[in-house]
Amino acid sequence: MDEFELIRKLTRSLPTNDTVATGVGDDCAVLDLGVPDRQFLFKTDAVVEGIHFLPDTAPEKIGHKALARALSDIAAMAGTPIAALVTLGLPKKFDPERVAAIYQGMKPVADKFGVAIVGGETTTNPERVFLSIALLGWVPRGKAVLRSGAKAGDAIFVSGDLGGSLSGRHLEVEPRIAEAHWLARHFHVHAMIDLSDGLAGDLRHVLQHSGVGAELLATSIPVSRAARQAAKASTSAKPPLLAALTDGEDFELLFTLPSRSAVPLLDGWKEQFPKVKLTCIGKVVAGEGITIRDQQGVRKLSAHGYVHFA
Amino acid sequence: MDEFELIRKLTRSLPTNDTVATGVGDDCAVLDLGVPDRQFLFKTDAVVEGIHFLPDTAPEKIGHKALARALSDIAAMAGTPIAALVTLGLPKKFDPERVAAIYQGMKPVADKFGVAIVGGETTTNPERVFLSIALLGWVPRGKAVLRSGAKAGDAIFVSGDLGGSLSGRHLEVEPRIAEAHWLARHFHVHAMIDLSDGLAGDLRHVLQHSGVGAELLATSIPVSRAARQAAKASTSAKPPLLAALTDGEDFELLFTLPSRSAVPLLDGWKEQFPKVKLTCIGKVVAGEGITIRDQQGVRKLSAHGYVHFA
Repeated sequence: MDEFELIRKLTRSLPTNDTVATGVGDDCAVLDLGVPDRQFLFKTDAVVEGIHFLPDTAPEKIGHKALARALSDIAAMAGTPIAALVTLGLPKKFDPERVAAIYQGMKPVADKFGVAIVGGETTTNPERVFLSIALLGWVPRGKAVLRSGAKAGDAIFVSGDLGGSLSGRHLEVEPRIAEAHWLARHFHVHAMIDLSDGLAGDLRHVLQHSGVGAELLATSIPVSRAARQAAKASTSAKPPLLAALTDGEDFELLFTLPSRSAVPLLDGWKEQFPKVKLTCIGKVVAGEGITIRDQQGVRKLSAHGYVHFA
Repeated sequence: MDEFELIRKLTRSLPTNDTVATGVGDDCAVLDLGVPDRQFLFKTDAVVEGIHFLPDTAPEKIGHKALARALSDIAAMAGTPIAALVTLGLPKKFDPERVAAIYQGMKPVADKFGVAIVGGETTTNPERVFLSIALLGWVPRGKAVLRSGAKAGDAIFVSGDLGGSLSGRHLEVEPRIAEAHWLARHFHVHAMIDLSDGLAGDLRHVLQHSGVGAELLATSIPVSRAARQAAKASTSAKPPLLAALTDGEDFELLFTLPSRSAVPLLDGWKEQFPKVKLTCIGKVVAGEGITIRDQQGVRKLSAHGYVHFA
């Protein structure tokens, strides 16, 4: 049992009340606040200097990434964002102009997705910038797409390309909110998650919540050019497929739906979102764990998702 | 213009939408989510190791303080909490048992006030624990008590004793939610805030938002025993009155209401909350700034509230 497992176990007995439709463990909490046709989503997500961005990262990009990451969790529930709060831990004497630039970086993202920034807090974190976003959103009642609905026989899809995000793409997260809305409106999506820890790790979350396993097809995994280039440039870099499975910070959608929907989905998506790749990477199977099929046959996937404490 | 002023100025032009009834600048944001008789409160509040607690502070007390502080902001709007998210930035190899103990410290506070803890996040903050609480709450529609309603002629009240909180009381914050509900139900409270930065600083927030000034009576300020003892123990400590005005971290309620309500308020409060002191400390006046009346006459109060970047 790793540290995350322990924390997860400890947080299972947390205080609850009758507003809670879905508590700890999904991309967002789902709350019932007394609106007949809606439920509400509640989520926080933090980025930390030296972990999620570097000391010399442009402050506008820090702001963009922080808000976009949090919105990606709203997308993963097929939700719509409403309002955000910004918590900024800053070293003493941090340049106020840099704070302004962090906020400036959030503004276009907030405008694009209709999010109000309604306040927040500035406090001291002496060694590094710590930026947490709290988000409130909504979904039509009963329509939040959880991690727990994957069924044996489902096809597994991912948007975009995976791996090598840290070479730059992670600063330009594009929350897949429009895509998720379209999916939820036109298909019976069984389970969805956004890829933050890496395909292998995040798929495992879906499988564990759903009590099923998965078989992936190695040649189908959409490996990013950044991951291929990194592997070419250095023999010590991860092989491209491993990078796509484990790098993390992709912020793409991973979802499952009945395999009979696969063809209409691919056709409709291509028309709606011609610039965003959509790939079927495998299928949900009975059992547990992930296997991957390549030239050598079918192997158990032992690679882990990106783990924050590693 | 200090750094906070600049940040405040910069955040005034933030993205908004039609859910926002009150945005940046009050104890909580007030949101309209489509419930006819309710509005919702949204707030984050962070505590940081070495700033708001010490490395050797018992982890249960850290959890208690973090959640109770955030609830104090809900109290300051006369609201009721619903659900909380916990963001924990932790040094690598932080003992999971200490994480469990932080959560354990939150549990009795959450239970007492009916708050569900619906998730959160654990990330890395290498040098120190950074703990932010995001809270959602509600108020009857139109009944959130803002900072902006103080009127010349109002009497100014504070609950509890002030100053010297850092000697221990700050770890035992008691959110004044029941008191705030009772106040809002029985009196026309014009303005309210919770005391986090110190009486002088927080009263100034109310006055600036309301476009008025205040005259305090020095002998009325309820100075805590801790502040008196600290002054007695060391000649380098703040004089007790200054401590009560500027120490911060009191988490008591400061509010104003028509002076004709002062006597029924004091009588009713004593009956309802016999263990919590309530004191009239002065009055709201036309103009701006704070004056304080003592044996030497009336002086302008130049002392600042506790400023995080000082």
